[in-house]
Amino acid sequence: MTGTPDAEASVARRPSPPIIAVDAMGGDNAPAEIVRGAVMAVRELGLRVLLVGRRSEIAALLAEEGALRDIPIVHAEDNLAMHEGALASWRRPRSSAAVSCRLIRRGDADALVSAGSTGGIVATSTVRLRTQPGVLRPALAVTLPTGETPTIMVDAGANADAKPEMLVQFAHLGCAYAQTAFGVRRPRVGVLTIGSEPGKGNKLVRRATELLAATAEGPPAMDFRGNIEGHDLLARKVDVVVTDGHTGNVALKSVEGTAAFAMEAVHAALTSSTAAKAGALLQRRALRSLRERLDSETYGGAALLGLNGTVVIAHGDSRAKGVARACQLANDLSGGRIGEQIRRRVHSRPPNWLHRLAQSEAPGQRGGEQTEER
Amino acid sequence: MTGTPDAEASVARRPSPPIIAVDAMGGDNAPAEIVRGAVMAVRELGLRVLLVGRRSEIAALLAEEGALRDIPIVHAEDNLAMHEGALASWRRPRSSAAVSCRLIRRGDADALVSAGSTGGIVATSTVRLRTQPGVLRPALAVTLPTGETPTIMVDAGANADAKPEMLVQFAHLGCAYAQTAFGVRRPRVGVLTIGSEPGKGNKLVRRATELLAATAEGPPAMDFRGNIEGHDLLARKVDVVVTDGHTGNVALKSVEGTAAFAMEAVHAALTSSTAAKAGALLQRRALRSLRERLDSETYGGAALLGLNGTVVIAHGDSRAKGVARACQLANDLSGGRIGEQIRRRVHSRPPNWLHRLAQSEAPGQRGGEQTEER
Repeated sequence: MTGTPDAEASVARRPSPPIIAVDAMGGDNAPAEIVRGAVMAVRELGLRVLLVGRRSEIAALLAEEGALRDIPIVHAEDNLAMHEGALASWRRPRSSAAVSCRLIRRGDADALVSAGSTGGIVATSTVRLRTQPGVLRPALAVTLPTGETPTIMVDAGANADAKPEMLVQFAHLGCAYAQTAFGVRRPRVGVLTIGSEPGKGNKLVRRATELLAATAEGPPAMDFRGNIEGHDLLARKVDVVVTDGHTGNVALKSVEGTAAFAMEAVHAALTSSTAAKAGALLQRRALRSLRERLDSETYGGAALLGLNGTVVIAHGDSRAKGVARACQLANDLSGGRIGEQIRRRVHSRPPNWLHRLAQSEAPGQRGGEQTEER
Repeated sequence: MTGTPDAEASVARRPSPPIIAVDAMGGDNAPAEIVRGAVMAVRELGLRVLLVGRRSEIAALLAEEGALRDIPIVHAEDNLAMHEGALASWRRPRSSAAVSCRLIRRGDADALVSAGSTGGIVATSTVRLRTQPGVLRPALAVTLPTGETPTIMVDAGANADAKPEMLVQFAHLGCAYAQTAFGVRRPRVGVLTIGSEPGKGNKLVRRATELLAATAEGPPAMDFRGNIEGHDLLARKVDVVVTDGHTGNVALKSVEGTAAFAMEAVHAALTSSTAAKAGALLQRRALRSLRERLDSETYGGAALLGLNGTVVIAHGDSRAKGVARACQLANDLSGGRIGEQIRRRVHSRPPNWLHRLAQSEAPGQRGGEQTEER
């Protein structure tokens, strides 16, 4: 897994495609749909995948697909229940999620994909993979269905109570994502708040906006655009929307809920009369492609950024296709070395206030690395 | 304006329909659409309306409609600009909004309807009408388009930084709204947060949930349902959604933005091919009625609750129909005496912690009334 050391080490390291550990036991439709998704990721997307979970169950499902030879299985006897939250990570060291993290730490895998409970996966992977040097808190990044190049929202729920300095880091985590996954060179960044004029919003947002405005010039580069409102989320105004995990999670679920509500209402309207029904027949294909666009499964899931290893959390109700998409996202992020992007952004000329805070927060979690400058 | 004093004074007082002062100068389409909306409110809805603003402009517009004799004009030489915020209320004592508040204080009107900037109207009316005894902060209540009986969300943006005790009061303000405008006897209340399990959410939400759970038994009665998530907003799970103004405003605008986005996407999908276009012709009526349902103008606007007088803030881009709907809402709330409902809810057996807080907050704003018990 180690490349030849040379002058361009950061570019030449690990030329082989990343290995993705898929948590076969997480999600409402586990393990059947998860295993099927892993097979799809290997056969249709050409990715390198491991399945982690109860060997006998996984083997039986792989045999059904005739894929026993294509995907290695790593046994894990335990798994996190869907309702389990943060404490689960301590209680279940032999869960499929915990075993997957161990594979990443050992260098036997590069990324984890799970459709398990968000709280459980966030807690398990934060404790077992640890945050990258200098990163205050890992954050959940999701893509909003805005078209070709999605808008990324950070944090979508990992940190219900955030500090202004964390929001500044969330901006950089989001920028690293936009650069790695979508090739955006100078990501436009906005802070989610309640008005377009400067100074609008709660204390957290106002202070984070000041800090971002003061440090946006970089390096690392970022095109800071100030305030973004709820109705701008799908309007492609920025590449990265920064928010705390409480507001971000509510906004994300409001968007998802409203899209589902609207599609149902459209369906009802289009089949409300004979004439309308006849019309709907003529439009079946157009509506189906629209529904797919709004369907959260067409996006890969939420990426937990800032840890020593790539973690992608698929929707709990993911089916095979959703799992395969999550594997693709994990591959893109890990293969694009998002970790190095984040390290560069967080470590390059950290403003004093941010650096001090980075050292004082959770000192037990990091070694001497956080004082290393480049 | 005063009724006969008798034993049932609180029921028998003011039997005549409320008088609504319409701010003719507020909004993107003021004064033309505002005046037209006022005429519609009088002629089609049978409401009692005053127009407040520059007399000559209003008179000319009323003359066009042949309505000069139907609607009295109260002159106000100044008006708030759409971009003006909180300070505007101090700077412009002769604005149409300020003059409207004076009419309410004097008893010459019962309610204010304005399509002016939310920040400006909230500040102006809070300073000039003052909060009801015991109310910590006025809050913006909006209705979400969930069908026959809408779900009410409080606060939708008046208080970006809130305290747990305020959220408890927002719940009661919302219950008073649901009872007054929609006749809901025991409103179901939920707190907007980021998970369905108890204990999910930020510190504010967790503490407010504890307080609500401890005091929900009442009186005043409320059916407290615990956590509500973003995707539940349009699902009619509760009658009242409680949240701080930051989260609420972001959620509201996310819903509005997504609904608009979905309708545009549906339109594009339905006209993407000849077959689809032919289908769309057959469905024109069904789609139009759906669009109206999702259109924010079909709901009356945001109600600012907790002041000595009813205030309804219509969308800034309201046209005549939206203004007329806002007048209808103001009429329903004021005619249903929402102020008394709120007073009863806030004053009846206030828990000690709430009562103490009520007395310590902004003591200059209230007289001795807040110690009065019933």
